[in-house]
Amino acid sequence: MIQHIGKQTLRLDAPVCVAAGAAVVGSKEGEGPLKERFDAVSDDLYFGQKSWEAAETVMLRQCFDLVCGKAGLTGAALQYLLGGDLLNQCTSSVYALRDVPAPYLGLYNACATMGEALSLGAVLTAFCGGPVCAMTGSHFCSAERQFRGPLEYGGQRTPTAQWTVTGAGAVILQSTGGPRITHITTGRIVDAGVKDLSNMGAAMAPAALDTLLAHFADTGRAPGYYDALITGDLGSFGHSILADLFRDEGLHPPTVFTDCGMLIFDAASQDVHAGGSGAGCSASVFAGHILRCLREGVWRRVLFAPTGALMSVVTAQQGESIPAICHAVAVEMPQGT
Amino acid sequence: MIQHIGKQTLRLDAPVCVAAGAAVVGSKEGEGPLKERFDAVSDDLYFGQKSWEAAETVMLRQCFDLVCGKAGLTGAALQYLLGGDLLNQCTSSVYALRDVPAPYLGLYNACATMGEALSLGAVLTAFCGGPVCAMTGSHFCSAERQFRGPLEYGGQRTPTAQWTVTGAGAVILQSTGGPRITHITTGRIVDAGVKDLSNMGAAMAPAALDTLLAHFADTGRAPGYYDALITGDLGSFGHSILADLFRDEGLHPPTVFTDCGMLIFDAASQDVHAGGSGAGCSASVFAGHILRCLREGVWRRVLFAPTGALMSVVTAQQGESIPAICHAVAVEMPQGT
Repeated sequence: MIQHIGKQTLRLDAPVCVAAGAAVVGSKEGEGPLKERFDAVSDDLYFGQKSWEAAETVMLRQCFDLVCGKAGLTGAALQYLLGGDLLNQCTSSVYALRDVPAPYLGLYNACATMGEALSLGAVLTAFCGGPVCAMTGSHFCSAERQFRGPLEYGGQRTPTAQWTVTGAGAVILQSTGGPRITHITTGRIVDAGVKDLSNMGAAMAPAALDTLLAHFADTGRAPGYYDALITGDLGSFGHSILADLFRDEGLHPPTVFTDCGMLIFDAASQDVHAGGSGAGCSASVFAGHILRCLREGVWRRVLFAPTGALMSVVTAQQGESIPAICHAVAVEMPQGT
Repeated sequence: MIQHIGKQTLRLDAPVCVAAGAAVVGSKEGEGPLKERFDAVSDDLYFGQKSWEAAETVMLRQCFDLVCGKAGLTGAALQYLLGGDLLNQCTSSVYALRDVPAPYLGLYNACATMGEALSLGAVLTAFCGGPVCAMTGSHFCSAERQFRGPLEYGGQRTPTAQWTVTGAGAVILQSTGGPRITHITTGRIVDAGVKDLSNMGAAMAPAALDTLLAHFADTGRAPGYYDALITGDLGSFGHSILADLFRDEGLHPPTVFTDCGMLIFDAASQDVHAGGSGAGCSASVFAGHILRCLREGVWRRVLFAPTGALMSVVTAQQGESIPAICHAVAVEMPQGT
């Protein structure tokens, strides 16, 4: 049903399908290149609430309701809910889902949380059959307030800085109906010694390489097996580092070798510097765009590899470097579809 | 191998054993009723570091090294590491484990994190065979600083307040050698409307009831099946609420019906008011005391049910109530041992 292969990978022989996906984003994301791919775009960054944290909560709930509606089920039908977010104590997920009567597993792997939720959700679905919901999100304003400073400061951003996505992504996993999750490679913590909070891409690229090398070694697949290899939110700067690291390793990436943080914004016109970031970046791009590309036949085999930076404001203030992680999930259209 | 039974429970037919456990605590915990049950007691609350956060990190690492030593393995041999803690962005777990070359899954269910880590760790062990490490912890001083105020304020505590345990607990799960995890009941989020941050027991007791009712219904077991039913950290006040709720439901608890927050301190002499709390409370009591009771034959069947309060400082300041959760794990000595 599930085989542990190599050092870090699970091969799912039981069918685990992404039966539905939903993505909700803010106005800036709704003006970007993927604007047609999201299920809902809010012009109101407050989502009708009085605080950014409450806004993030409502956005997540809206995304949850949308994905349940698309899958034709109620929250009570879910076997498991897997969620998490960037807020301290992961509260937006909890408050969004607090009246859903289904078992809840709270996760935290920063911006790699969607990869973790898909991975553990797939494992649970493999023997329970589902439906299981995996979701996460982030909000630009709550993240700025918590990790950097009040928006009103108007702080300058460095060229390597990224823009936290206001967005949520949710999927329903079950044994039938949609692209299959076939392999999961769970990442190790990699600390490359980077201390620059405005250069998360440099901190996370070595973690992405570590997990992708493990995935290729464990599965025996070359990068070219995939139609698309899409990392989480390295941004353009981190992506170029990963491309260099691939070259150093003698790896040849597939034609579509990109990053959710580069896909969601048009860096040239949207003033986002190195691109998007945040747990909601990879989550909304996966649930909104990547799933659609699979269903539309644009791609048949995708390796989705969200990345996360695992520091906090306190560890940064105490002079620590930034540990990072990346979880890879192979999603493939079944043969004959 | 694993059967989903009832609504929220997994029955593990494949053997998942708690092959080793280790607990490290601070000086106050080391003066309490369980002082002989911990593997290490630190008289230095700083654990040789310059900050409380770094102290918590070193404590977790010490605990990890101890449990690996007891199991006779190195970190590199682990199939999975599951960890989490109360610090913002769960950093003490990450920094404690950042040089351990094993796949890492970060979890956050507040003080119920040990229950979540045991649950997901057991699921992974069921088909991989292990070894898998599940761990968490908390530190009184880092928690006070983050959730309440600087220690130097010397704030008064209400009678229902609890004392965050300085402690860590870690276990190694594998297919042989030790008490077996036989059933896992994953909790739902329950928000009873409590807003008093000094009365977490009241906020969490309804979540404990919800999960325990699900466990008994799903398994067909009565509470009396267990030699001991031990909740996470309701404290004495929350425990008395749970006892009342049991009575209202017509449930008869086993003779040993207690709580990790009541076991770890002597409330009368140690000035901890309603007892211990924190992710390290249930983790250190489980890894230090409960496991030993099972190995020593004091108990053969234990239902361990850590509880967590899922709010943050921000949600409390914004007037929100406290959602709570409880995960139950049945741990039993195999027949004939």
